[in-house]
Amino acid sequence: MIQFLSLKKINAKYADELKAACARVIDSGYFILGPELQRFEQAFASFSQAKHCIGLGNGLDALTLILRAWKLQGKIKDGDEVIIQANAYIACVLAITENNLVPVFVEPDANNFNLDPAKIRTAITEKTRVIMPVHLYGRLCEMPEIMAIAAEANLLVLEDASQSHGATLQGKPAGSWGDATGFSFYPSKNLGALADAGAAVTNDDELDKALRALRNYGSFERYNNLYQGVNSRLGEMQAAILSVKLNHFWSEVECRREVAARYLAGITNPAIKLPQWEVREQHTWHLFVVRCSQREALQAHLANHGVESIIHYPKPPYKQQAYEKMNHLSFALNEQLHREVLSIPIDPSMTDEDVETVIEVCNSFSA
Amino acid sequence: MIQFLSLKKINAKYADELKAACARVIDSGYFILGPELQRFEQAFASFSQAKHCIGLGNGLDALTLILRAWKLQGKIKDGDEVIIQANAYIACVLAITENNLVPVFVEPDANNFNLDPAKIRTAITEKTRVIMPVHLYGRLCEMPEIMAIAAEANLLVLEDASQSHGATLQGKPAGSWGDATGFSFYPSKNLGALADAGAAVTNDDELDKALRALRNYGSFERYNNLYQGVNSRLGEMQAAILSVKLNHFWSEVECRREVAARYLAGITNPAIKLPQWEVREQHTWHLFVVRCSQREALQAHLANHGVESIIHYPKPPYKQQAYEKMNHLSFALNEQLHREVLSIPIDPSMTDEDVETVIEVCNSFSA
Ligand SMILES: Cc1ncc(COP(=O)(O)O)c(/C=N/[C@@H]2[C@@H](O)[C@@H](OP(=O)(O)OP(=O)(O)OC[C@H]3O[C@@H](n4cc(C)c(=O)[nH]c4=O)C[C@@H]3O)O[C@H](C)[C@H]2O)c1O
Ligand SMILES: Cc1ncc(COP(=O)(O)O)c(/C=N/[C@@H]2[C@@H](O)[C@@H](OP(=O)(O)OP(=O)(O)OC[C@H]3O[C@@H](n4cc(C)c(=O)[nH]c4=O)C[C@@H]3O)O[C@H](C)[C@H]2O)c1O
Repeated sequence: MIQFLSLKKINAKYADELKAACARVIDSGYFILGPELQRFEQAFASFSQAKHCIGLGNGLDALTLILRAWKLQGKIKDGDEVIIQANAYIACVLAITENNLVPVFVEPDANNFNLDPAKIRTAITEKTRVIMPVHLYGRLCEMPEIMAIAAEANLLVLEDASQSHGATLQGKPAGSWGDATGFSFYPSKNLGALADAGAAVTNDDELDKALRALRNYGSFERYNNLYQGVNSRLGEMQAAILSVKLNHFWSEVECRREVAARYLAGITNPAIKLPQWEVREQHTWHLFVVRCSQREALQAHLANHGVESIIHYPKPPYKQQAYEKMNHLSFALNEQLHREVLSIPIDPSMTDEDVETVIEVCNSFSA
Repeated sequence: MIQFLSLKKINAKYADELKAACARVIDSGYFILGPELQRFEQAFASFSQAKHCIGLGNGLDALTLILRAWKLQGKIKDGDEVIIQANAYIACVLAITENNLVPVFVEPDANNFNLDPAKIRTAITEKTRVIMPVHLYGRLCEMPEIMAIAAEANLLVLEDASQSHGATLQGKPAGSWGDATGFSFYPSKNLGALADAGAAVTNDDELDKALRALRNYGSFERYNNLYQGVNSRLGEMQAAILSVKLNHFWSEVECRREVAARYLAGITNPAIKLPQWEVREQHTWHLFVVRCSQREALQAHLANHGVESIIHYPKPPYKQQAYEKMNHLSFALNEQLHREVLSIPIDPSMTDEDVETVIEVCNSFSA
């Protein structure tokens, strides 16, 4: 059985360090907004080439709170529009609607499934205030062009880099492009905590301050509440764990890149469309997403041969029952992608044999 | 130096168990919505004599999400009023306003600083839908009378038991009275995790279901979103830690009770008003709050003699800048309490000598 991703195996490599990090925090007696968080925030800001990093409860909160801070600062208001690709994860859309903003979906780029700059231009209205490029699978959206559009139209850019920590384009990593960026450290992410966790990064001093208050009931100093805030703090224990994980980040990505390279060379079944990827980008291969017009049959074939796979995601956000009022929306390419995408295992702990098996099973599939 | 509360010392007693719990979860490779959470939820539901327990990200989220679920279920709507004591913690009020509900403050009970049933009756209007008794310091509000008022007026009751896990009145614990209850497991609470954590408990099957979806992006089953939810999950690691803490809960409370008994017998300074407490209640002594008309002088005197103390809380919620539109409100008794209350150390790890020192320093204070 080849699992989609085995955190058990991955963490086993670092088990002693992870346990030592937990033990250190337990012995310290200090669990919220302390030195471990500060250390991780500094390291992750520098990793993302941004001035500030604010540790938060999870990736959804990171996006929600950035938008909320912009509302507090008067940069956006209820009813304003946010342009986002139609194949984003549901959480991206939840962050928008939670703030009484309106998601404006556009067809993704047919090649890389990311936000398509050409589609942004035609979607801009008088109410557009934010562009939200979601860097899916481990690679960046076309940020140079997106930033140019934003500058022209005077729009804010909120990057969602939950799937693309450390990925670069023209040498600039996720988090260094937009006005602010949300990250998830959900356990299965390339940089994953051992619980829910997330962060915002930004170069904007005022936004940094507002987010530090918002995550802490709205207060800068104890018992003085400037804003109506929430509770969304990245705790000391997960911060210490993330510091360990960050140290091993690039060696894990290297393993992912090797698996990807072998898949790209080895999977030759014409029924399976491989991801396309250009050398000017540094892809971190969070997901290896293939397309297949007989996706369900392929997934069954893989399962029958002991290979686990996941569909990211089976249903577009605007087709969810939670968004009944948007259910009439339709994006042909996007819906085709939702019918065809399949994520196959790209686990840094895979053995050469595992990779070989996946390749063979893919190649033995007949539609 | 006698600290207000030393989690370092308290946790030292259980360090091996806590580290073993972390190690077990690390080795399991499973971190979100798994068996550790299920085990803790069952144990805590039974501890609180409620049918369901839903582990959440923190105590504020517990309150916020219960109200949000009631809105989804059509039980309450924007603009409805929630009656709450004016000396509640800011988070209680944030949960109300986050849901576009209106907090209606009432003077606390002059003796126990909790919600005063007499004040509820006169505060009920056509818009009142919820009563929110906040069980402060480790003791319950007058729940028999509050439940009778709620039944008469057809109101929902949301208990906030963040400071009173396990406290009982007439043998019934916090969480077993109202329609739903929010708990915080912030580290300094009597039942404290080693990070932010919280839970809701309820007997209501529908509410239980709604909360399980709401905490998980609004979905019951993966990738199917019924509601516009959030991310607020109590992770496996903190659930495992809370299971350890729950086992030692009553022995820790016993230590607190001994400290309280010695304070009540030993502090005889007429300038210091001790908490009153009736035998029909089981007080869990989360805080030992005294009153003193020269509070700042008393706090300075304690500090000069190496005794740390905290003011819970210096400023009422409706006087916070975050609630500018409520700043005109005024509650004379409540504001007097805010000027006079002081929490002195009631730490289960205090030595007899520490307790003696605190008593002596209190008694040597002259106003
Ligand atoms: C673009 C974008 N924006 C915002 C967000 C929101 O961030 P969040 O609020 O932090 O979730 C996401 C999150 N996105 C992810 C989403 O992509 C999906 O991720 P996923 O990798 O399919 O998650 P999974 O199926 O739980 O885990 C994958 C595999 O990993 C293994 N695993 C997993 C866990 C949890 C474990 O403990 N042990 C394991 O061994 C087994 C599983 O098969 O579902 C998650 C709940 C979201 O956080 C996003 O992609
Ligand atoms: C009624 C009611 N409803 C809802 C809530 C909201 O719940 P929440 O969202 O979970 O916070 C509260 C929370 N209430 C508490 C609030 O009472 C206050 O609690 P507090 O005990 O004064 O907190 P503290 O000063 O941080 O800790 C007290 C002492 O504990 C020690 N300590 C503390 C920490 C964190 C540590 O790591 N190590 C330590 O040794 C040293 C400190 O002097 O502030 C917290 C942030 C809230 O969670 C509430 O009281």
